[in-house]
This record gives sequence, structure tokens and C-alpha cells, in this order.
Amino acid sequence: MKVRRRPLDGSALKRALREIRLVVFDFDGVFTDNRVLVGEDGREYVFCNRADGLGLANLRQRGIDCIVLSTETNPVVAKRCEKLRLECFQGCADKWETLTEILWRRKIDPAQVGFVGNDINDLACMENAGVAIGVADAAPEIKAIAHLVTSRRGGEGAVREVCDLVISARDRGR
Amino acid sequence: MKVRRRPLDGSALKRALREIRLVVFDFDGVFTDNRVLVGEDGREYVFCNRADGLGLANLRQRGIDCIVLSTETNPVVAKRCEKLRLECFQGCADKWETLTEILWRRKIDPAQVGFVGNDINDLACMENAGVAIGVADAAPEIKAIAHLVTSRRGGEGAVREVCDLVISARDRGR
Amino acid sequence: MKVRRRPLDGSALKRALREIRLVVFDFDGVFTDNRVLVGEDGREYVFCNRADGLGLANLRQRGIDCIVLSTETNPVVAKRCEKLRLECFQGCADKWETLTEILWRRKIDPAQVGFVGNDINDLACMENAGVAIGVADAAPEIKAIAHLVTSRRGGEGAVREVCDLVISARDRGR
Amino acid sequence: MKVRRRPLDGSALKRALREIRLVVFDFDGVFTDNRVLVGEDGREYVFCNRADGLGLANLRQRGIDCIVLSTETNPVVAKRCEKLRLECFQGCADKWETLTEILWRRKIDPAQVGFVGNDINDLACMENAGVAIGVADAAPEIKAIAHLVTSRRGGEGAVREVCDLVISARDRGR
Repeated sequence: MKVRRRPLDGSALKRALREIRLVVFDFDGVFTDNRVLVGEDGREYVFCNRADGLGLANLRQRGIDCIVLSTETNPVVAKRCEKLRLECFQGCADKWETLTEILWRRKIDPAQVGFVGNDINDLACMENAGVAIGVADAAPEIKAIAHLVTSRRGGEGAVREVCDLVISARDRGR
Repeated sequence: MKVRRRPLDGSALKRALREIRLVVFDFDGVFTDNRVLVGEDGREYVFCNRADGLGLANLRQRGIDCIVLSTETNPVVAKRCEKLRLECFQGCADKWETLTEILWRRKIDPAQVGFVGNDINDLACMENAGVAIGVADAAPEIKAIAHLVTSRRGGEGAVREVCDLVISARDRGR
Repeated sequence: MKVRRRPLDGSALKRALREIRLVVFDFDGVFTDNRVLVGEDGREYVFCNRADGLGLANLRQRGIDCIVLSTETNPVVAKRCEKLRLECFQGCADKWETLTEILWRRKIDPAQVGFVGNDINDLACMENAGVAIGVADAAPEIKAIAHLVTSRRGGEGAVREVCDLVISARDRGR
Repeated sequence: MKVRRRPLDGSALKRALREIRLVVFDFDGVFTDNRVLVGEDGREYVFCNRADGLGLANLRQRGIDCIVLSTETNPVVAKRCEKLRLECFQGCADKWETLTEILWRRKIDPAQVGFVGNDINDLACMENAGVAIGVADAAPEIKAIAHLVTSRRGGEGAVREVCDLVISARDRGR
């Protein structure tokens, strides 16, 4: 694990945001509010936000890829990603290992990655991404090492905020 | 797209509210809190508010029509509108285009329309409606061009607030 | 509709609370937060609170009856009341008419009734009950005529608060 | 019921936390926000939090057992506990009686038990556990006798907070 290049000052952060070619999202606690509704048959339901779809569509239009990386394997994650047309990697016991492989295959440098996480199993990815973003209600360990913390909580528009941020940094940089 | 007649001062706004013959509502983020509950089978559920029904009934009693305009095509929107006895137009890639056609058929002037929206796909309708209303938690772009912003958030009584507002402007205007 | 005996000062209110033989609850917005979750098949789900059950059990133990009065006819209301072992009257277009009949049959004076409501279709019952109670997030019209407003919102423990209040007034009055 | 050893000052509390061999959780209002979603068929759904799973896993890794004790018998509790790999005792009319028997069988002293509760049916267990913990939104009666009140509400990370607290007391105590 390489040494953190933290903190980034304002202009360095804007430069880093403009470098992003791939945004990697954790699912639970980022696309959702980290809650899960549990039924009597054990089926799970999660709380997502319609605001996120418009942001992701805008990001894709600008040629920036987005993927989801989730520790658990859960049909609800697959279904939500399918609807949002997001590629989704599930069952990643070690997220950073999975991400390393993805980046290698896609020839993307970690510096070109924006990573959005909320809990301690996101730490290694946060440590290594060009721009590490925590949601407003992330665990303290995540906020401590984030370049950026969103003003919105997971499932309450945090994904949309990240999309708007990346787009706005890029548009202003032209 | 015509030039905005914005801003309306207090008495002009009241006059405009009294002119309303048709209230057009976006669905997600207006009737709902913009969240969606997603199940393992991909089925969606949305969070609506019982307060809205009483307001819509009162509006209808006074002969003011209400319709719903939604970008997506989603059975959950149809079902909710059915229960509230609201005519519902779904799958509107361009909402303003759809609305123009509806107004033409019903011989209603855009100045006689109140439009209630929350996100950027509502911008054109907001720009053209006689009274453009944003919900309390609308996107900043929407709030910037709204004649009115409700004190209540989408799904938390914003629809009811709009109904009460239109009724009260009309009742006082008699 | 008789003239309101409002307002009740502190000790008159305590006396009135001790007189209560029957507590009548509206359902939506009192047992729930007035929201409804709507599925793609139109099925409805409502948000209730486990805290309420313990309060109702305590009330029943002291011989105070509780019933639910609901304008709509909805299986979800019946199911929740069944679980809480509450008698439930649904499809009451005019709640006060239904309640008058119930009181007549049970030989209970309106002064011996605590009524808990949240919206304008509860007005007549509120006007006539010995103790009229609005939930914290009731409509302004309801709060304006309530003897008491709970500190908790509907679905967030308002029912429990009412139960605890009635019990505590009675226990202290011994 | 023995006399309370309350209050514990800071260092006594840390010592008590380090003694814990078993953490006993109430379910509703601790793992959940005490709400229940009710469907038209009477089925129930509860709101849990993904944050809790990571905390429980960490606790288990350190050899500290966790169980759930619930008054009601509800499939939703069994399913959630199954997913979190928590042993679950349901239908405990008297929780303290059930817990006494569990402790006797496992040869654990009440002083070695952390109990996490939220409502009055947890009182006896709270009175007898080595460390009695109430969630942020517990009933006043529970908070009054708790050694510790979490900063997070039930279903909003209270379980995780308790896990982190026990782990941190233990790790620092080495």
C-alpha cells in the first residue's frame, strides 16, 4: 500500500477530479442509506435514490465509466445496478484486490480513479484511489482519509453529488 | 422557449395562482421523497403520503384539474395515480413537449398551468408554466427558477401544500 | 355540534384525562407517519411503531378501551389492528357519525372519550371528544382545536405517548 | 432483583466493559429503529442496518459471544439473526428469566454480560447486567438505569457502536 498523497489542496483536488476516468462506488451506504428492510422470509430490500440516475447518465455521456464494488453477493445490488446500467462486481472479499485487477485489465492508473466509500472495508481502495470520497455519514476511519466528504448522506443524493462534482470540475477545466 | 416573467411579486403571484386551471405534477420527488425501495427481484416501491389525497380531492371539487407527468414508465406511478384518481402521462422523454400537446388539446394556456417539479428534467416545464413550483428539496437549478418553493419536501406533504395554496388563493380571490 | 369547552387549564385537563373510558384513534398519521409505501402492483404498506403495543397493553390492563376509526377501508389497517388486538371501524365517511353510534351503543358519554387525530377529517370528532389530542405533525386545523398535542409524531411513538399520559393521569389521580 | 451497582465511574466502566464475555441484544428498537412496515397481508418487515454486521464480526473474532433476546416470536427476527449468524431466543415473556437460564448453562456471571435494550420489557435484564446499555432513543425508564447510552439510535448503528466500544475497551486494556 503506497503512502498517502493527502491532503490535496483546492487546486490539486480539482486537477485530480479532472483526471478521473473511472468512478468506483461501494453500494451499501453509498447508493443506499446503509439500511436494509428485512422481510419474514429473509428477503432484503434497500433504499435507493432517484436523483442518482440522472447524475450517472450525465457522467456516462462525458465518457467517464462507473462501476460498483460490493463485498457481499446480493441480488438486490445486481438489480439496482442493472436498472442504472452500472457494471457491478460482487462478492469481493478484498475490494482493493478486485479493483487492482480491474484497473490492470482496463489499463487505468489508480490516480485516475475516484472511489466513493462509507465503511472500513473500503479503506484500502480509499488509500489508493486518485480521489477518495467519503459520504457524509461514512465511518470516522473513512472520513479521516478522504480527500472529499460529500454534503449528502448515502442514499440521499451522495452519488448524484459526486457525479455533479466530477462533471463540474471537468467542464470548468476546459 | 419564451422569456421568463420572473420574478412575480406577491400580488402578481396571487393573481397567477387564481388563474390556474390545471396543476401538473412530476411524480418522483414530488409525490415521493425521491427514494425507491428495491427488492431482490428488482421490483420497486415508493414512499407516498396520505396527506396528498385530501388536498387533491379538494382541488378537484373546485374544478381544477390535476395530472401527473413522468419521464420514466413505471407501474408504481400508474398504481398510485389510479388510487388518487389522477390522469398520468408516463414515458415522457421530453416533458415540455408532452405538456404542450396536452395543453393544446385541452385549450389551456401555459399561463393557466401550475407546474410542480423537483429535478432538472422538469426545467423546461418550469420555465413555461404560469406558476412554477419547486418542492423544498428540489435541485438548486429548479429552485433558482421557481416562483414558489414549498415548505414541505417531496413525499412529506408538498402536494398537499400546493393544493391548499391554490385553493386558498382562489377562495380569497372571490 | 356542541360548543367547545376549550381551553382546558392544567388541572381541568388532568381531570378530563382521568374521566376517559375509551380512547379513539385515527389510523393513518397516528399509528403511522402518514406515509404509504406503494408497490408496482398497487399494494400498500404502512410504517408502524413497536413502542405502541406496550402502551396499548398497559391501557387495556387498566380497563380502558381503545378503538380505531378510519375513513378508508384498507386491509393494512385491519391487519395492524388485529395484531394489536384493537377493534377497528373502517370506511367511515363521517367519523363523528360512526363514533356517535358507537358511544350510544356502549353508553359512553363523549366527555369520556379521548380522540387522537391528525387531519381535517378528524375535526368533528376532535370538536366533540372530552379530550382532543393531536399528534405533533397534525394539520394546523387539528392542532388549533386540540386540548393536547403529543411531543411525538404519528408513527414515532405518538400512540404510546397518549397511552402513557392517560395511565399516568389515572395513577396519580388515585 | 439485586441492588444496582450504579453509577459506574469512567475507569470502573472501562473495567466492566473489558470483563464482558457475552453481549445480549434486544432486537426491536436495537437492531431496528423500532418501526415495522406492515403489508396488506399482515406481513411485517423491519429496518436494519448494514453497519451492524461488520461490528458483530469483529466482536466474534475476539471471542466475545453475542445473542439476541426477543419478547415476541417473529420470523423476521429469526431471519435477520440467521444472516448475522447470531443465536436468537424468541418468545421470552420474561427476558431476565430466559437470560438467567442461558447464563447458568454457559457458566457466565451476570457481571460478564453487556445488555443492550430500548424499552421497559428490558428493565430486569438492564438491572442485572454487568454493563447495561440503552440506545439513544430508548424509553426514559431504560436510560435512567443504563450505565451507558449510545450516541446512535436503534437501527442507525447502535449495535455497531456497542461492538466498537467493547472492542476498543478490550484493545486498550491489553
